[in-house]
Amino acid sequence: MQTTKKINIIILATLMAVLLPAAAYCTIGHSGEGAHNISMTILWIAVILISAKLSSLVERFGQPSVLGELLAGVVLGNLALVGINTFEPIKTDSIISFLSELGVIVLLFQIGLESNIEKMKKVGLKAFFVAIVGVVAPFIAGTYIVGPWLMPGLSSNAYLFIGATLTATSVGITARVFQDLKKLHIPEAQIVLGAAVIDDVMGLIILAVVSAIVTTGGVGLGVISWITAKAILFLAGSIIFGQLLAPKISKLFSKIHTGMGMKFTLAISFCLIFAFLAQKVGLAPIVGAFAAGLILDPVHFNYFNDPQISNDINKELASCDENLRNKLLTITNSYTKHHVENLIAPIGLLLVPIFFVVTGMNVKLETMFNMPILIVALGITVTAFITKIISGLAAGNVNKLLVGFGMIPRGEVGLIFAMIGKNLNVISDEIFSAIVIMVILTTLLTPPILTYLLKKADKK
Amino acid sequence: MQTTKKINIIILATLMAVLLPAAAYCTIGHSGEGAHNISMTILWIAVILISAKLSSLVERFGQPSVLGELLAGVVLGNLALVGINTFEPIKTDSIISFLSELGVIVLLFQIGLESNIEKMKKVGLKAFFVAIVGVVAPFIAGTYIVGPWLMPGLSSNAYLFIGATLTATSVGITARVFQDLKKLHIPEAQIVLGAAVIDDVMGLIILAVVSAIVTTGGVGLGVISWITAKAILFLAGSIIFGQLLAPKISKLFSKIHTGMGMKFTLAISFCLIFAFLAQKVGLAPIVGAFAAGLILDPVHFNYFNDPQISNDINKELASCDENLRNKLLTITNSYTKHHVENLIAPIGLLLVPIFFVVTGMNVKLETMFNMPILIVALGITVTAFITKIISGLAAGNVNKLLVGFGMIPRGEVGLIFAMIGKNLNVISDEIFSAIVIMVILTTLLTPPILTYLLKKADKK
Repeated sequence: MQTTKKINIIILATLMAVLLPAAAYCTIGHSGEGAHNISMTILWIAVILISAKLSSLVERFGQPSVLGELLAGVVLGNLALVGINTFEPIKTDSIISFLSELGVIVLLFQIGLESNIEKMKKVGLKAFFVAIVGVVAPFIAGTYIVGPWLMPGLSSNAYLFIGATLTATSVGITARVFQDLKKLHIPEAQIVLGAAVIDDVMGLIILAVVSAIVTTGGVGLGVISWITAKAILFLAGSIIFGQLLAPKISKLFSKIHTGMGMKFTLAISFCLIFAFLAQKVGLAPIVGAFAAGLILDPVHFNYFNDPQISNDINKELASCDENLRNKLLTITNSYTKHHVENLIAPIGLLLVPIFFVVTGMNVKLETMFNMPILIVALGITVTAFITKIISGLAAGNVNKLLVGFGMIPRGEVGLIFAMIGKNLNVISDEIFSAIVIMVILTTLLTPPILTYLLKKADKK
Repeated sequence: MQTTKKINIIILATLMAVLLPAAAYCTIGHSGEGAHNISMTILWIAVILISAKLSSLVERFGQPSVLGELLAGVVLGNLALVGINTFEPIKTDSIISFLSELGVIVLLFQIGLESNIEKMKKVGLKAFFVAIVGVVAPFIAGTYIVGPWLMPGLSSNAYLFIGATLTATSVGITARVFQDLKKLHIPEAQIVLGAAVIDDVMGLIILAVVSAIVTTGGVGLGVISWITAKAILFLAGSIIFGQLLAPKISKLFSKIHTGMGMKFTLAISFCLIFAFLAQKVGLAPIVGAFAAGLILDPVHFNYFNDPQISNDINKELASCDENLRNKLLTITNSYTKHHVENLIAPIGLLLVPIFFVVTGMNVKLETMFNMPILIVALGITVTAFITKIISGLAAGNVNKLLVGFGMIPRGEVGLIFAMIGKNLNVISDEIFSAIVIMVILTTLLTPPILTYLLKKADKK
């Protein structure tokens, strides 16, 4: 009963977010002159952001807010089914679609910033084996076994894309779950994070290969090797040269200005230029953005002024007793260290929800209430679970189940794959809907399972 | 000699910012597939941001960075004169032009957040009189005296726009100058800030009236009253209802989530929705954004969690001696209070330079090295100085010269007027260039003059 009430509140709140601006818009009419489309796009951004935030009510159920954003998008995108066409223009607004793509670029940059190369070296081989199995098992199962078995008669390209989609591991969701449960520093969490990062890179190489096969209509081993080589060269090159050059560039620019603005501009320009370069070598822009985030370390910004609050507080600490001084210094140092992340965070708050809500808007509900699609979706979901649980077995002497379930959320990366497949006309609306159901289920079921496994482990 | 060297450095640095990405782009070629325009737009954003930051070298000369951003735009926009056409697409990129408009909306929102209604009440009548004289004097001088005298034979609409452009006072630049000189709290600074705020609102009403006259080809007293009434009703209504509703809306949304994300979304959505509504009643979107900023007060966000660092530090302060505790509490309270501004700041860092660089790109240098235009520009500039110095006389028993010179920078608002006039085909390229020279000169000359006046006053 309590749950039904809460669900009612969610639906009501989402509808309010949707209907209030709609009503305002219809009442006021179209009296504005001039750049009409620009002011409409501005309203759409507000509508998307407010719906996304209202949908964060899902956190009450222990669910990550990304799920709420997807659901808000599903509502906004399917109101046409009940005769409300107000939000249909969002789907074709070219500026919204640009902001959405920029949003996912910023998200992968943030994820890259959260990770770093040193952390990845520590979890080392274990994470690498988990990642390999976590990519190979779902790809083979999706492409060659479950795909043809559940959906006979499709093109081999479609099976390839389903397999590729299943390889994804959402670093964002995985990290968020462990963070919410305050378990980011246990070895299992470190392994899952490392493996998810490697998985992302491998998955994106798979995406590049699969996209090339689809767009050029089949591809030889030579071309696959060339794409893989390009991807690895770009990533290795950008990581090696990036790490060498980032401190030098940072030092050079700090000679012009040492303020927050320069720090921000350097970080975001790194992200944008790497996203551009990645696309120039045939990779997705998000690969470049992720690499840019991975390269940038707090130490690269040592030439810049500390944030004002750290500065002000550190100035007062001389007269302080040693114990308190150390505590406060730890706080301000950690704030200073994460200052670049803090500066990028508002850009993420503005742009990332646009990506998820727009993604949700692409879900066609009419195809979802379709028994055959639901059956396919459940079949894909079971495959998604089993193949990642298997990858946990490669983790060695740790809680293998915890690692395996930690790898399950497909999140944004799986959706990106599905969107690209849809844009290439390889993935039909029906399969896209099935994949979205799989993403929603892997995202929805993982947090309670992880919570259960962690509590069980704590009892031992 | 020293100055020549520094200027050489600026030119070199700006050229490097321009040429390096250009070279990279030409070398790599056009091999990228897929959403080509999107990745180009991403590169343009990086080019604009980096040029803007390199141009902040002008701060070495005590000049505000807005001047550097304009100059960087002038360079980027006129490289075609020396045969480099690489950056010409920026001028016609619809997404860059949207981001630029969003940038100026965010800037006016930030300026609104910095001001608040209580502050404006304190400086009260003095600021109001300065504002009135500071709008009426330049408008009459520009429209009826200097305009027709310097540029005979133009349409009365052109004179109207020149007059309107001269009424502007740049809150941003004025505030920045006093802030840089650490004189924000002297009465003269308060009066100038208050008057600049009122000037902005009055100037924008003038803009609405002048735009209506131009677009409907002449306008009666009834229509002027209606536009003025609409503007005042919108502003008064949004301020009264906004102040009443903002805490309620804030409280409602804090029930869903009390985190940073919700705080940010509320603030930015306020800005976007007010910008949209302003355009719906026929005002410029920036008027709405400014009103939204004016309405939002730190107190409206009391329902939300304090930022993490304040929280962490406040937790440690119980064991602390009272003197130190009070000092640290002051620091963290001021940080908490300005947290909304801090959250919006990175959005400004991303979008605001796009507006100024794009504005600079619209300056056609070939029309500037034209003696008649230069003479007109100098005539307009002298008018701009004299009429605002006169407004200082209305300030009563304070340093009248300081107030008058504080009102001189035209900055972004003047440029917005000129851009709108240009888009309406009322302002020709030549007059636009003359206005930009006036804006650059008022922006460039004010900081050294204010510094001189403040030091002279300090000696007394």
